[in-house]
Amino acid sequence: MIDAADLTARLIRCPSVTPNEGGALVLLEDLLAQAGFEVRRVDRNGTPNLFARWGAKGARSFGFNGHTDVVPPGDLGSWTHPPFSGHVEDGVIWGRGATDMKSGVAAFVAAAIDFVRETPPDGAVILTITGDEEGPSRDGTTAILDWMEAHGERMDACIVGEPSNPEIMGEMMKIGRRGSVTFTVTAKGVQGHAAYPHKARNPLHALTAYLNDLIAAPLDQGTEHFDPTGLQITSIDCGNPASNVIPETARAVVNIRFNDLHIAASLEADLAARAARVAQATGVSLTIATQVTGEAFLTAPGPFVDLVRSVVTQETNRQPVLSTTGGTSDARFIKNHCPVVEFGLVGAYMHQVDERVPVAQVQQLKTIYQRILEKYFE
Amino acid sequence: MIDAADLTARLIRCPSVTPNEGGALVLLEDLLAQAGFEVRRVDRNGTPNLFARWGAKGARSFGFNGHTDVVPPGDLGSWTHPPFSGHVEDGVIWGRGATDMKSGVAAFVAAAIDFVRETPPDGAVILTITGDEEGPSRDGTTAILDWMEAHGERMDACIVGEPSNPEIMGEMMKIGRRGSVTFTVTAKGVQGHAAYPHKARNPLHALTAYLNDLIAAPLDQGTEHFDPTGLQITSIDCGNPASNVIPETARAVVNIRFNDLHIAASLEADLAARAARVAQATGVSLTIATQVTGEAFLTAPGPFVDLVRSVVTQETNRQPVLSTTGGTSDARFIKNHCPVVEFGLVGAYMHQVDERVPVAQVQQLKTIYQRILEKYFE
Repeated sequence: MIDAADLTARLIRCPSVTPNEGGALVLLEDLLAQAGFEVRRVDRNGTPNLFARWGAKGARSFGFNGHTDVVPPGDLGSWTHPPFSGHVEDGVIWGRGATDMKSGVAAFVAAAIDFVRETPPDGAVILTITGDEEGPSRDGTTAILDWMEAHGERMDACIVGEPSNPEIMGEMMKIGRRGSVTFTVTAKGVQGHAAYPHKARNPLHALTAYLNDLIAAPLDQGTEHFDPTGLQITSIDCGNPASNVIPETARAVVNIRFNDLHIAASLEADLAARAARVAQATGVSLTIATQVTGEAFLTAPGPFVDLVRSVVTQETNRQPVLSTTGGTSDARFIKNHCPVVEFGLVGAYMHQVDERVPVAQVQQLKTIYQRILEKYFE
Repeated sequence: MIDAADLTARLIRCPSVTPNEGGALVLLEDLLAQAGFEVRRVDRNGTPNLFARWGAKGARSFGFNGHTDVVPPGDLGSWTHPPFSGHVEDGVIWGRGATDMKSGVAAFVAAAIDFVRETPPDGAVILTITGDEEGPSRDGTTAILDWMEAHGERMDACIVGEPSNPEIMGEMMKIGRRGSVTFTVTAKGVQGHAAYPHKARNPLHALTAYLNDLIAAPLDQGTEHFDPTGLQITSIDCGNPASNVIPETARAVVNIRFNDLHIAASLEADLAARAARVAQATGVSLTIATQVTGEAFLTAPGPFVDLVRSVVTQETNRQPVLSTTGGTSDARFIKNHCPVVEFGLVGAYMHQVDERVPVAQVQQLKTIYQRILEKYFE
């Protein structure tokens, strides 16, 4: 039997700060190979990734997805225990990645190995583990999925093991995510003296009116499974040091987390139309650059969602909320491949100094994953 | 007879880029002393200033004010003639300060000397010339006025020789100026993740709403002698590089050019009241730092204004508009000392590369100043 808590500590001891592999994938590769998995490194552009399958290619399959890369530890002196020590004390494992998400990876790796040993299924278990989730996410899970597509590999359903519970195990699972898109709006007017504004066109006035229009009313009221779309201005910058000068240009960055009423392109069209109206009224040009992080998606409630929910309820005595809140995750890539839900640990210490996780929570997560596999293949 | 154009060229050859004296005040000091003026350098904190009086202290007096410091020449290679050459060609004097305002100083120095020689008045002519108008203006005209106050020196009326005509000699004189005040508004909220705005308070949203309120409606409609008060946002800055992060702080700079319906303190109170409303609605604190450049002032039309206007009309065949437009000038200090108006050259090339002035315009200005002196003392 694989001890998921011990495996978590061993993974924490691999200093896999994104995009470094740090020994974490090598450790898993060996462990899974020994357990009878076919393992394959599918690195792309220097990003380390691991694909592992137990069972026949093409058989009915269940998958897990996770990542072993972690965010930088920050100020080392602020940590109670060194961030890559994997120190265990009083039933708590300390270190960078303790919750996000070496514990989640350890839990599904341990669950998968024990499951195929104890109750070998009539089907396949597939693990997709990337080293590029905390980085640009260009050559991580997408690289594995591209490789799988090219090699006829397929998951029929997948759980992403990211922390999904805000505070207590079992309270929340994610069945989708809002989309995320970032717009950079550049306003260009005509420079001039603050005392002679009729000879200038102030880009900051146009930008202020534009942004105020964007934040004045919500973009929608939410949908059955999604919160209302949220818009945040994350920066406005001009850099004009002279208070008697009207500047020529200014720039704003707007991030939108959107539900299934929108796609990035429809939001872009809306923002461009509003920009055109302000430009016409002010004579200031407003140009928009768009960066799409991910579209909104939903794994509609049904047999797969019910299966996961019933196991979580059974093991935690809590009925998890079916949520689509939060940031983005690699589920946004997997949703194009197969139905995907997210369930993992409590995310409280993610990305913080003194990131840590209770041993019991990791063991409980491993049990939940193993029960899901059992139920899926029974 | 003093040739004002030649004196302009000689002054241009003194490289008196603010705050350097560059030989300009020394030149004038010698010239005025030779002409029978009592001259006195009233430097303060390293800033060079010159006071000169012809006639008895305490007698009825007419004053002129100007500055010999100039703004930097910028890219030397862009000048047709070197900026400190004082090159004269085809009836045009070239160089930094040709319009702003070595020509104006040369015109009133020449006018004053010729006037007291040709028609010695029963009174005094006072010249106040600073080397700190283009700089912070802390130890320039204010230093001279402080020194005059301390030494019982007084002007009964004063002309500031700054360029006052937008395009043609005689079209405009200034009988006051709008005030200028700059507010720096700092918004402080609570940092957070763009996907969880309910855990954060976005200072940019509060600032956008605040600024939009400021620019949504004019502060007034203007008064008899003043344009409407104008408000310009001159910078907004946040410097947040992460589009998934709601920043903690942001800052905006607002410059207001205000008429005689306001004082800086009343505008500050208005902006603070608006800030309090936004703070209450958003939970974001908005603090305001105030920098007063000058209050609005008016030398109401009357005998002094009429005198200047009639001479300008007679010499240029144009009836000058009585204006209060434009930026600030040292008249904002002199208005506390005596009635002050501004009349000078055409300001078209101020602060530009290839600053230049027609010889004939300088001569005409000298004649106007001399006629004003004659009429004042007749």
